[in-house]
Amino acid sequence: MCRWVAYTGRPERLENVVTRPARSLVHQSLHAAQCKTATNGDGFGIGWYGDREAPGLYREISPAWSDENLMSLCAQLSAPTFFAHVRASTGASTARANCHPFSVGPWLFMHNGQIGGFCGIRRRIENMIPDRLYPHRRGGTDSEAIFLIAMGTVENDGPVEAIRLALAGINAVMDEAGVSEALRFAAAMTDGKSLTVFRWSSDPLAPSVYFRQTPDALMVVSEPIDDHADGWQAVAANHALSTSCGDRQDLPVIAPFEVVPAAPAADRLKQLLGGKAIEQPGTARAPQSLVAATA
Amino acid sequence: MCRWVAYTGRPERLENVVTRPARSLVHQSLHAAQCKTATNGDGFGIGWYGDREAPGLYREISPAWSDENLMSLCAQLSAPTFFAHVRASTGASTARANCHPFSVGPWLFMHNGQIGGFCGIRRRIENMIPDRLYPHRRGGTDSEAIFLIAMGTVENDGPVEAIRLALAGINAVMDEAGVSEALRFAAAMTDGKSLTVFRWSSDPLAPSVYFRQTPDALMVVSEPIDDHADGWQAVAANHALSTSCGDRQDLPVIAPFEVVPAAPAADRLKQLLGGKAIEQPGTARAPQSLVAATA
Amino acid sequence: MCRWVAYTGRPERLENVVTRPARSLVHQSLHAAQCKTATNGDGFGIGWYGDREAPGLYREISPAWSDENLMSLCAQLSAPTFFAHVRASTGASTARANCHPFSVGPWLFMHNGQIGGFCGIRRRIENMIPDRLYPHRRGGTDSEAIFLIAMGTVENDGPVEAIRLALAGINAVMDEAGVSEALRFAAAMTDGKSLTVFRWSSDPLAPSVYFRQTPDALMVVSEPIDDHADGWQAVAANHALSTSCGDRQDLPVIAPFEVVPAAPAADRLKQLLGGKAIEQPGTARAPQSLVAATA
Amino acid sequence: MCRWVAYTGRPERLENVVTRPARSLVHQSLHAAQCKTATNGDGFGIGWYGDREAPGLYREISPAWSDENLMSLCAQLSAPTFFAHVRASTGASTARANCHPFSVGPWLFMHNGQIGGFCGIRRRIENMIPDRLYPHRRGGTDSEAIFLIAMGTVENDGPVEAIRLALAGINAVMDEAGVSEALRFAAAMTDGKSLTVFRWSSDPLAPSVYFRQTPDALMVVSEPIDDHADGWQAVAANHALSTSCGDRQDLPVIAPFEVVPAAPAADRLKQLLGGKAIEQPGTARAPQSLVAATA
Repeated sequence: MCRWVAYTGRPERLENVVTRPARSLVHQSLHAAQCKTATNGDGFGIGWYGDREAPGLYREISPAWSDENLMSLCAQLSAPTFFAHVRASTGASTARANCHPFSVGPWLFMHNGQIGGFCGIRRRIENMIPDRLYPHRRGGTDSEAIFLIAMGTVENDGPVEAIRLALAGINAVMDEAGVSEALRFAAAMTDGKSLTVFRWSSDPLAPSVYFRQTPDALMVVSEPIDDHADGWQAVAANHALSTSCGDRQDLPVIAPFEVVPAAPAADRLKQLLGGKAIEQPGTARAPQSLVAATA
Repeated sequence: MCRWVAYTGRPERLENVVTRPARSLVHQSLHAAQCKTATNGDGFGIGWYGDREAPGLYREISPAWSDENLMSLCAQLSAPTFFAHVRASTGASTARANCHPFSVGPWLFMHNGQIGGFCGIRRRIENMIPDRLYPHRRGGTDSEAIFLIAMGTVENDGPVEAIRLALAGINAVMDEAGVSEALRFAAAMTDGKSLTVFRWSSDPLAPSVYFRQTPDALMVVSEPIDDHADGWQAVAANHALSTSCGDRQDLPVIAPFEVVPAAPAADRLKQLLGGKAIEQPGTARAPQSLVAATA
Repeated sequence: MCRWVAYTGRPERLENVVTRPARSLVHQSLHAAQCKTATNGDGFGIGWYGDREAPGLYREISPAWSDENLMSLCAQLSAPTFFAHVRASTGASTARANCHPFSVGPWLFMHNGQIGGFCGIRRRIENMIPDRLYPHRRGGTDSEAIFLIAMGTVENDGPVEAIRLALAGINAVMDEAGVSEALRFAAAMTDGKSLTVFRWSSDPLAPSVYFRQTPDALMVVSEPIDDHADGWQAVAANHALSTSCGDRQDLPVIAPFEVVPAAPAADRLKQLLGGKAIEQPGTARAPQSLVAATA
Repeated sequence: MCRWVAYTGRPERLENVVTRPARSLVHQSLHAAQCKTATNGDGFGIGWYGDREAPGLYREISPAWSDENLMSLCAQLSAPTFFAHVRASTGASTARANCHPFSVGPWLFMHNGQIGGFCGIRRRIENMIPDRLYPHRRGGTDSEAIFLIAMGTVENDGPVEAIRLALAGINAVMDEAGVSEALRFAAAMTDGKSLTVFRWSSDPLAPSVYFRQTPDALMVVSEPIDDHADGWQAVAANHALSTSCGDRQDLPVIAPFEVVPAAPAADRLKQLLGGKAIEQPGTARAPQSLVAATA
């Protein structure tokens, strides 16, 4: 389990979200309240949008609570959209390449959750990453793998469909492998123009996600970063939140998000993975064909 | 606050103390039970005696719980006497030079506690370190400073007197500077031949120390590393435990330990610090002369 | 390009090989003489055999020349067989999981060289790692991949055949992908009982390997660690050196080593990779069938 | 020996100085040309001025050449004034607190050179740091000590006099201690408003410093970062370069810089260090009185 915050709105100094609030993300690195693991000390990262299309990234393997560089960067940097994440490893080693957020081109992604039984099915999951994106596979986490699979379709399908497709394919691999543990996914994704946040799980235990919209900013978080009791609303389980980045003219749209792989999804994935013939999936949740396509 | 274990007895594999017990030191790095800070993730270290007079040292700035090197070393190494420590910083940065145990020549030292108000009196404390030992001042912790001051007299006076003298001098500096915070000292020190452990504080809150003697080994710890309810005895506050290292033929000696700087101590310190004239201390607890001698 | 040393013989303190000689491996981390890259500062590692079947490992991402832990460990540890390696990355990031030596069970492996065009064929290479070994794929280097592929057959075929088979398969993938860069392989492998060293390349530029046998010890190195002009002999290109570990009763055996994948090799690989039908390879150097088997 | 660059002028992206030029500072971390040590791999740092009075700092202990965070920060950040430094240790350990640039309040400082015999006189040098600045003494380098001593007078006397006074005092301590090695000082210092660069040595071997002024920018460097033969001019030994920061309306002023401690300097230092009586220095280069004042 990890903790994260996503910010978009009027340009804000990162320290006002990441390091200074009473329950700031850095505070949560040592004392998370709504997390199986109170300590999130297996590395951290920030990603932010400056004057380039690609975001900046600072990721480090030390705990966030003692990192002087993080303090200095958060004091200096202001951005209209930024992500920050503190990590509690579910198995992969403590290395920069395993720290969130992950980035490809203009995209940032961060995740709290797990692919159940990942160790036993890692290669099959990794084989769902398109060839052109495989050089971006730098670490060993399930989270990075989900992101890179979704990156294969995001340009055509947008983030909601790309993630739905990735989770459907992963679910299928898990089912084929007989994994009984859940696929859990509380994640945020942005290209600096739109922000999409997901709260979903294959079991009833979707990891918590909250948001708060003010005239100036939208924040979406694993757990609240302060004690303003009236400010934070939970995102309902199995919903996705979508919004444009930057100035807050609209409320975010929160819509149900389900992962039901059907034939079109399987066909899409087939195309991505090289155009081999694929049978129609016979069941809603365990499309053998997806698995075959990615074996 | 930190957590530590000291072992001496029949040569033992480090993993049986450091990494494998139910409440092993590595477990305590994430879930300490008797500590203000449950997380001790600001670095760690082990020191052990092999076939050389000087001990081996492995110290690292990452949290102990995720360090593969620590796991491998503890699986390989056996020693008749070894120390292990997980750190929760009270201010100094996370750097190897600030990780315990500290070592000079054959000596190892580790500490849980604090010099109250250290930041404001650091230089005066450091100026109590003898010239010949000052090149060993590699970090910025109060703990390393106490050790190096004691190293100045340990060869002549032995560990109990050396520590008593160091704490007396430090206490005097604190008094002169008007520090109201306490000097707290739960520490272990060894040269591979004898082991001395201290539990002392200038206020009533001496940090906990426990020990367990078996026919094979003596372990002294910040808090028990397992749940054998009958096995662990607390060392009383303001006592020192002394024992020879290696095979357990004798029980450790536990004797009252007080820090009452009197004239002889002041004279001793004077000699060490360069032979300048020193007045007799006028008060038991705040000998201005000690301070003058070290200014 | 990297630098490494392998030692086997009478138990020797690591410092006498790794840190103290005039051209010790640590010296070579800053000033290698026979290397495209004089600086080998992208991490390092040591592996050694104690009283357990599995070797100990200490690997770190900092440069070897400034690592206090390495100095202390090499001063303490003695072993009859040990490896040490300083790394100059050919692309993969500086992470512990990318530092040599690599280890699985009792085996140690370290490498200087490259899989030409690795970035573009990484997944195909990784797909040659047997399922049961894939959880050991912790980093992103070509070196670790070669090792894990060879680990798939080493128990049955021994190190020479296992490496030959791995290189043949990799060569085939490279050929199919049209890679024009070379596959270069100067490597050492041991299980603590026998030591095998390879000097081979698909082009005429096999990286250098030297050895020196004394009554007490055999050392095999990337380049000499001292200036004893008469002591070091080059291993000829495309040869493998084999010897038993520990006391030096025999000279090492140095035999030609060629990587000519023929039908038996292809069949062996097929079996390993899941028993799918494989056609006989039509050419000596680019067996499409191997590729198919591993796709 | 280290390598550094100082930039001031029209806001510039850091990558155009630090990471991208043919002989960029990151290139020099591996292949310095005018340096005793071609490799400057013992950590690095950048400091830059954003929209706050205090600069941002990113310092890390890994070599600059492989640091992904540095690449990303340099791609994102633009600043009118920034420093960058790659370190080759002359003794102090590889720790963030030993990486340049150093910072106190609005000031940045970086250095290439040495205090000869520093190990033996470290405490005496450190005792010249004013009390109020001693909490900023986080590492163990001679460079940080020089900076903190100069910080004691910079607000009143400006950077040139502050450095002159610091070097005079240090020189005096060296003389008293009989140090025969040189005091060498190629350094840059800024508060974001003015930039001062020094090239000075107590022997004839002042470390190189070059500068290039264009209509847009002034760069001052240890050695040129590109091959524009006509672009770079050497700063003469024992000179200081001074200029305002930001837009280039004036040429920098380059004036002789000598370290001749005279009575006024000694009196100034006396005041700083607590007002004790000081005799007039009897010799130009070894004023015992300075030493006495700082003992």
